[in-house]
Amino acid sequence: MTARPTRKGIATVSLSGVLPEKLEAAAAAGFDGVELFDNDLIASPWAPREVASRCADLGLRVDLFQPIRDVEGVPPDRFDDVLHRFRAKLAVMAELGADTVLCCSNVAVDAVDDPDLSADQLRRLGDLAAASGVTIAFEALAWGRHVHRVGQAWDVVRRADHPAVTLAVDTFHVLSRGDDGSALADVPGDRIGFLQVADAPLLDMGLLEWSRHHRCFPGEGTLDVADVVRATLRAGYDGPVSLEVFSDLVREADPRRTARDAMRSLLFLEDSLAAEGPPAPARVDAAFLEVPGGPGVPALLGSLGFSVAGRHRTKPVTWWRQGSADVVVNDGSPDPALGIVTSPVPAVASRAKRLLWPEVDRTRGAGEAHLPGITSPSGLHVFVSAPAGEEDHWQRDFAPVAPGPAADSAWTGLDHVALAVPAERLNEQVSFLRTLLGLVPGGTEEFMEPHGRLRSRAFRPGAGDLRVVLNVEDVGAGRTPPSGVTQVAFATSDVRSAVVALRSAGVPLMAVPDNYYADLDARFGLAPDLLADLRCHGLLYDRVGGGELLHAFTMPLAPGFHVEVLERRGGYDGYGSAGTHVRLAVQRR
Amino acid sequence: MTARPTRKGIATVSLSGVLPEKLEAAAAAGFDGVELFDNDLIASPWAPREVASRCADLGLRVDLFQPIRDVEGVPPDRFDDVLHRFRAKLAVMAELGADTVLCCSNVAVDAVDDPDLSADQLRRLGDLAAASGVTIAFEALAWGRHVHRVGQAWDVVRRADHPAVTLAVDTFHVLSRGDDGSALADVPGDRIGFLQVADAPLLDMGLLEWSRHHRCFPGEGTLDVADVVRATLRAGYDGPVSLEVFSDLVREADPRRTARDAMRSLLFLEDSLAAEGPPAPARVDAAFLEVPGGPGVPALLGSLGFSVAGRHRTKPVTWWRQGSADVVVNDGSPDPALGIVTSPVPAVASRAKRLLWPEVDRTRGAGEAHLPGITSPSGLHVFVSAPAGEEDHWQRDFAPVAPGPAADSAWTGLDHVALAVPAERLNEQVSFLRTLLGLVPGGTEEFMEPHGRLRSRAFRPGAGDLRVVLNVEDVGAGRTPPSGVTQVAFATSDVRSAVVALRSAGVPLMAVPDNYYADLDARFGLAPDLLADLRCHGLLYDRVGGGELLHAFTMPLAPGFHVEVLERRGGYDGYGSAGTHVRLAVQRR
Repeated sequence: MTARPTRKGIATVSLSGVLPEKLEAAAAAGFDGVELFDNDLIASPWAPREVASRCADLGLRVDLFQPIRDVEGVPPDRFDDVLHRFRAKLAVMAELGADTVLCCSNVAVDAVDDPDLSADQLRRLGDLAAASGVTIAFEALAWGRHVHRVGQAWDVVRRADHPAVTLAVDTFHVLSRGDDGSALADVPGDRIGFLQVADAPLLDMGLLEWSRHHRCFPGEGTLDVADVVRATLRAGYDGPVSLEVFSDLVREADPRRTARDAMRSLLFLEDSLAAEGPPAPARVDAAFLEVPGGPGVPALLGSLGFSVAGRHRTKPVTWWRQGSADVVVNDGSPDPALGIVTSPVPAVASRAKRLLWPEVDRTRGAGEAHLPGITSPSGLHVFVSAPAGEEDHWQRDFAPVAPGPAADSAWTGLDHVALAVPAERLNEQVSFLRTLLGLVPGGTEEFMEPHGRLRSRAFRPGAGDLRVVLNVEDVGAGRTPPSGVTQVAFATSDVRSAVVALRSAGVPLMAVPDNYYADLDARFGLAPDLLADLRCHGLLYDRVGGGELLHAFTMPLAPGFHVEVLERRGGYDGYGSAGTHVRLAVQRR
Repeated sequence: MTARPTRKGIATVSLSGVLPEKLEAAAAAGFDGVELFDNDLIASPWAPREVASRCADLGLRVDLFQPIRDVEGVPPDRFDDVLHRFRAKLAVMAELGADTVLCCSNVAVDAVDDPDLSADQLRRLGDLAAASGVTIAFEALAWGRHVHRVGQAWDVVRRADHPAVTLAVDTFHVLSRGDDGSALADVPGDRIGFLQVADAPLLDMGLLEWSRHHRCFPGEGTLDVADVVRATLRAGYDGPVSLEVFSDLVREADPRRTARDAMRSLLFLEDSLAAEGPPAPARVDAAFLEVPGGPGVPALLGSLGFSVAGRHRTKPVTWWRQGSADVVVNDGSPDPALGIVTSPVPAVASRAKRLLWPEVDRTRGAGEAHLPGITSPSGLHVFVSAPAGEEDHWQRDFAPVAPGPAADSAWTGLDHVALAVPAERLNEQVSFLRTLLGLVPGGTEEFMEPHGRLRSRAFRPGAGDLRVVLNVEDVGAGRTPPSGVTQVAFATSDVRSAVVALRSAGVPLMAVPDNYYADLDARFGLAPDLLADLRCHGLLYDRVGGGELLHAFTMPLAPGFHVEVLERRGGYDGYGSAGTHVRLAVQRR
């Protein structure tokens, strides 16, 4: 994966459906092989030989089979049972044409804590395996009874000293125990028999439950998967890199979609392992929000203080502006879009293609800016523009209109866009923002709503002013959570004037309960003048260190859609989350 | 609660919606008071005085207010901030008419580990509180930085030695840390200022997440809530017993429904604290399954081997029988029902009434058995019959029909009924089975399905043969999980004959994949004759100790509805869960 691409695999358990659907989805996404879960085989009407031939037809190898548990550290009087089970499964493997079998460390209460016994038992299984041309890959389950760290598993494999007994590396099991790639420093690559990769969000829960319900594809969680993979490949391992991801989400998702997401994560992992790291744009700035046209849209933009700044030379698209805040109205598209500025533009476009992100279907007039559009999993399009002054800058496609009164306002631009995704699309959208735009996620914040909860995560580039807030609303059975752009925040250097102007233009602003100001006073002990001023203008307030945020929200301007105006002072870098519960209660009332 | 009923309260955070909905729901369910969460107040347009008057109108006291965190163990140079916040909130409490304030142990990283400092700071707060006629109740949060067990909190309260500084007991915080009621042995009742109750399922996860997302009402989880409440009341505490339950489920549920469920849990808790324990039926046996009538039903029952055994004297209801297995077809009801036999019948009926479980709306003809019907949260009705031979036995309502050929079959009765409930109804259904019928839940088992997962829990009475299996299917967004009776299992002493008869009557039986038998052989090393026999009859098999289960399933006979026939041998007591994944994959294919 460093020098050359490795074989890419995925476990059938990572995909929903029954075996034929799983295999087709894996093949369609371009995988080279699968780990076959025994339960998928047992429930299938296909005999093992037929599974082998179907896989061959689809261009898939059966890279791994894992049919048997608790095989080492077994009380000696019961080891004959293990041999019986192992022989039976080797017979199945011969028909499957699989040559690697995964054996996990024993989790039974009566497992014996004796590495020499474990090694001896693995050696005896190794003799049987070798006679069938099969290699054992021995894995330390993070919740194994005695063997639960990769170093312990390696110790047992070393003691077994058998050519058919090798070490299996699983990034989740290594990292969830607090180990990292350095734990593999002494392991020769030809003694590593298999590499399974999975990421996970950081959760404070039991390892087994964490593993069973919350694994995700590399780059969607917080584990340093690349570190363990790099160490494994450096050791000289040249087998498949195989995704083993269990989660409630993948069990419920369309397997074809999951397989594409899975393949993308391996491509990104591959890039991350390159000497120069994954290619990410040097900086990413917010350019404009594009909204679909509609009967009320011009009037609404007018009341928000925007005026027309330009008309597209060939398309039914209008550019609106207030100060330096830009909104584009597209009468020809039903979907919202976010315009960003980065450089070089073609690199982002080709990167999107390599990562299987779909392009927006659009025509480009002669002489127009090359503005590639990519559809994100949430449905939001992203248009990529070159910086101002360059040929492919988005504003060059518009014939300017004489500046209206809004041109010299104090609005300084798009501060952030809040995007709601259904829970089952979250990982994909995170992957989009990270892999394509190189955005970095902040921590997850959680807010109670009157009828559910909101999970929120802010994304920022390494350099540049783009801010995207990704929200998931859990609203309960039978109710549809919001999806798409739910809020746009505009930055201003004078939020008081902004609020006064909006109010006089008849824009419905959120009424802040008086109790909020009593609490604000209790929390911050604000100067009476400031408190009176906030109350009088209906502003929310937050303070962190020397930074302050003053902001206001509209009531819904379209179903589930709000505008925020905000003023950041003294380097305030957050989103006013201390007041979010108030906003949610008032806006949803 | 032992000798006399105590005041019953509920935290506003335990109910979804905004403040007016929460208060109305609490009042409608008969609560005496509420714990007011500060966020509910802050987000409300009602001034504190108006909240007080609305509560008074609804007959609710504001039993507790909890507006402030991290008040003790504070670095001394920052304690003035705490005093400022506390004074501001005391002013709010004066308007609310609340006289108890909850203060939780400090969770901040810089909290000082010094019980004397904590006591001193609480004493200073106590002086302020006393001047306002307010009492502080100090609670050890299970994840408090230094004070996280109830004994530590009591130590601080003791050192503070101030009449306005008392101990708060929260059953979750006490039990989740492994303490129990004996931790309160030395605490005088008048030093306990508040009692909060919450249950929770046993989960292997961080205490904070466990508490925030998985609390449930007493009797719905696995904590011994009664033990801590008993100890608190024995100490002499005579304040409110107040439910403080946060969970993803209650946040999404209808607050009126939650409030009823909450009140029911306190009534059951009250019963559990009585010297004689909660009244539960001495034994509960399965009597019959009632199904709604329909065009295909008689033919289906006929093909399953049932024949008509009786006709109801006054209603469009037919009794079908095979061996000793009974099914009742009701042409007048759209809902399925379960008939049970227990004694005395009127006790169950009056208990249902006290616990707010709704009665089935039905007429009763002159001279008919008194067969009270209760609607369970899942929609399944339960009809309660007296034992055979008594006047109120259900069969006495039927005019017998001459026995058909099915009368002498080997079917011995209803083995179990599987009931699917949506995830958000699970706790209520558990409460129904436990509080009304005294059924005892087994552990939760989890199975992967092709497109989701199944969580399953079996319920049994202390004595009697009733078995109910409660299933929750998580199938993902946009798909409706099954609900209602999904499976009925009939017991037989000869499953081979049963399967042969069903097959020859054209009942579609589940085809068991051949791979299943290869795996069975690997797992159990079965005698070749037995294995061949199982394969030939398409039977699933399980063995635990000396007990064996042989069973078979039909394909869906109605959407999502299956019949199982099973033969238990040698005291086998389970449900064949080792084969469940195969069944699910085949039946859902």
